Amino acid sequence: MTETELQSLAGAIPGIDPEILTAAQARLDDLTKPPGSLGRLEELGKRLCGIQGRVPPVVGRKRVYTLAADHGVTAEGVSAFPSEVTPQMVLNFLRGGAAINVLTRHAGAEIVVVDVGVNHDFDGVPGLVHAKVASGTANLAVGPAMTRPQALQALGVGVDLANSAVADGVRLLGIGEMGIGNSTPAAAILACLGGLSPDAVVGRGTGVDDAGLQRKADAVRRGLEVNRPVPGDGLDVLAKVGGLEIAGMAGLCLGAARHRLPVVVDGFIATAAALIATRLAPAVAGYLFLSHVSQEQAHGRMLELLGQRPLLDLDLRLGEGTGSALAFSLLDAAAKIMAEMATFSEAGVSGKDG
Amino acid sequence: MTETELQSLAGAIPGIDPEILTAAQARLDDLTKPPGSLGRLEELGKRLCGIQGRVPPVVGRKRVYTLAADHGVTAEGVSAFPSEVTPQMVLNFLRGGAAINVLTRHAGAEIVVVDVGVNHDFDGVPGLVHAKVASGTANLAVGPAMTRPQALQALGVGVDLANSAVADGVRLLGIGEMGIGNSTPAAAILACLGGLSPDAVVGRGTGVDDAGLQRKADAVRRGLEVNRPVPGDGLDVLAKVGGLEIAGMAGLCLGAARHRLPVVVDGFIATAAALIATRLAPAVAGYLFLSHVSQEQAHGRMLELLGQRPLLDLDLRLGEGTGSALAFSLLDAAAKIMAEMATFSEAGVSGKDG
Repeated sequence: MTETELQSLAGAIPGIDPEILTAAQARLDDLTKPPGSLGRLEELGKRLCGIQGRVPPVVGRKRVYTLAADHGVTAEGVSAFPSEVTPQMVLNFLRGGAAINVLTRHAGAEIVVVDVGVNHDFDGVPGLVHAKVASGTANLAVGPAMTRPQALQALGVGVDLANSAVADGVRLLGIGEMGIGNSTPAAAILACLGGLSPDAVVGRGTGVDDAGLQRKADAVRRGLEVNRPVPGDGLDVLAKVGGLEIAGMAGLCLGAARHRLPVVVDGFIATAAALIATRLAPAVAGYLFLSHVSQEQAHGRMLELLGQRPLLDLDLRLGEGTGSALAFSLLDAAAKIMAEMATFSEAGVSGKDG
Repeated sequence: MTETELQSLAGAIPGIDPEILTAAQARLDDLTKPPGSLGRLEELGKRLCGIQGRVPPVVGRKRVYTLAADHGVTAEGVSAFPSEVTPQMVLNFLRGGAAINVLTRHAGAEIVVVDVGVNHDFDGVPGLVHAKVASGTANLAVGPAMTRPQALQALGVGVDLANSAVADGVRLLGIGEMGIGNSTPAAAILACLGGLSPDAVVGRGTGVDDAGLQRKADAVRRGLEVNRPVPGDGLDVLAKVGGLEIAGMAGLCLGAARHRLPVVVDGFIATAAALIATRLAPAVAGYLFLSHVSQEQAHGRMLELLGQRPLLDLDLRLGEGTGSALAFSLLDAAAKIMAEMATFSEAGVSGKDG
């Protein structure tokens, strides 16, 4: 996509109608339970009403997009796993053996796996969405990870995926990723947008040791110094210190919000993409549900920047969309509460202080 | 049941075999994910293996028991809702219109509603388990809530229900309750067993105002003064300041643990029952999963006494078993991860630092 198309998309994201929220609250207060006693489940239901523009919200088809890409910054020794694991795991997703396969099946959701930038030739591999922008990013520690046109192209991949989801009648969309080395660009994005030091934003990812953690912080520090990404320009930050799957997930957020489709965000890397999306279009924030706070130490800081409390706290640090898949159950539950519970008058139950 | 039968049951609860836990950990570390990266989901899976005595654990039939009873202490003005709501909500459960009905359906679980002490004649009402021990407790603020034989009888109701669940092939059991006024006995149990002041243990329950909160604290204070329950004697505490549904839920915990059936505990009142069960038989603790930390302010203190971190934090304060039903999804997910994920060698994926 072009920058003009991106600006046009950002401007087309609808706001949330306050009248729908009022109607949703009235419905919640009429159900046979003390007012507010279902806590955050009530908030979720109300937000779903606002996003979908109807009371009660519709429960429907659910899909996780797992975007895969490689990262030049792995040359700096920032990951506990070798880069060849990215394509190996893509094949594992396609065979149904990974955690995200188990958890999407459990949630009654679909999974769509997308090659947006893996350093491997998947030609002829069935079941994969082939949308490779490049065979991985360049090493962000020594120069820009992507060109600006590459970042726009990867954003466009995500927007197209969101449009497909809407066309297929998907009602709840989850974002997740696979990319050895990708907690380093996510950390660099957080450092830049949150004004934090490299030491404060890096974590152990898939399990690096102390020396690896130091190499990650150094890579982030050098990446910020050499690239000088401009915090006020989300596209600049994304291109210089981001990743192709991060750009794709940001595009998914934008495209989904444009069509009033709620997006459930996974962990540290997916949240970095969501953060970029809100910088490209602040109205996106109203469409995001943050599924969990991960064990990656700086994830909490990222969630603070988005101003939302996560749904789950399970010490996950896997990615793939696993947190999104787990949170689907809570969102469906919230929608069903609004659609299926009896009201006080229907059930003949006395009200409070009655 | 008699006190001798209770002691015999308590002594028959099996311990957890450490060899099964070792085998479970080995299985988890062989799956295609960084070791430990599914965090608490891995802990849950491992505990399920230990409880069931097999790797991977079995996913199967799930059931919530919602026990209903009335409370003499409502005479003290401790609740925002009138006592007639207890039987009204029982009928709502039987018609399928309450939150617990929606959430058990959502979880693919059954709900069994039990009258263990409601002050209403349910004769001939179908779909209800009729196990009334008394038409509510006496007012704990002026004397013992139950006699010791009544408490034993209500415990026996719970043990029998657990035996039925085992006979029906249930693999995951949830406990919940309905009883206007029952956050007051739960608070009194916490004050007694935790050595806490009445002001520290009372909360707003279904929504009492400041004056009601003061009346609750006063009722707890008078209840402890007049009854002098002995903290070292769980049955004495249960009888003097407990409730019939609390006793029934404690019996469910004992009976389930006896047959290696995991129990998912709901909020403040169900946790009070679980606490009593661990005082009657400490080995019960290994079979409990604490579903959530509720908005009831003292629930956190109660969870600390049980030494377990809750699974969810959703500001729920409804009861009925709603937290248990929501947590079922996480436990099933944990079991499926262990049963369905591919191993590194099966998937041809390189290991860490490989």
